[in-house]
Amino acid sequence: LTKKTYSVPNTSCDHCVATIERELAALPGVDSVKAELERKLVTVVCDNAGVLAEVEKALREIGYPPDA
Amino acid sequence: LTKKTYSVPNTSCDHCVATIERELAALPGVDSVKAELERKLVTVVCDNAGVLAEVEKALREIGYPPDA
Repeated sequence: LTKKTYSVPNTSCDHCVATIERELAALPGVDSVKAELERKLVTVVCDNAGVLAEVEKALREIGYPPDA
Repeated sequence: LTKKTYSVPNTSCDHCVATIERELAALPGVDSVKAELERKLVTVVCDNAGVLAEVEKALREIGYPPDA
């Protein structure tokens, strides 16, 4: 398992949190997702590092690009 | 074509607007979607009134239940 935490500045309300968690959790290979409103962090646990590219792509596509 | 405007109180930021528009626009039979942040309204144009049931179901599923 691989765990990574992203800074996601667009996390601006509780509904953003729900959207991020729902969309990422639906990706193949993603085991858990936790989005935090106050700190604007998204922590993902997934099967392997290769899944992270899909996670980052999805975040950009739904309007929550992670900081580099 | 059928047009309906919903009051959606959970429309709380620009990212909510983007999420609502993206998710509803992806539904079969939906022709256009406009979400408004200030007025918290979502206006949908769709092929027929039957599509509205799917629109309302989707709004509830993504965390933006319309007012009755």
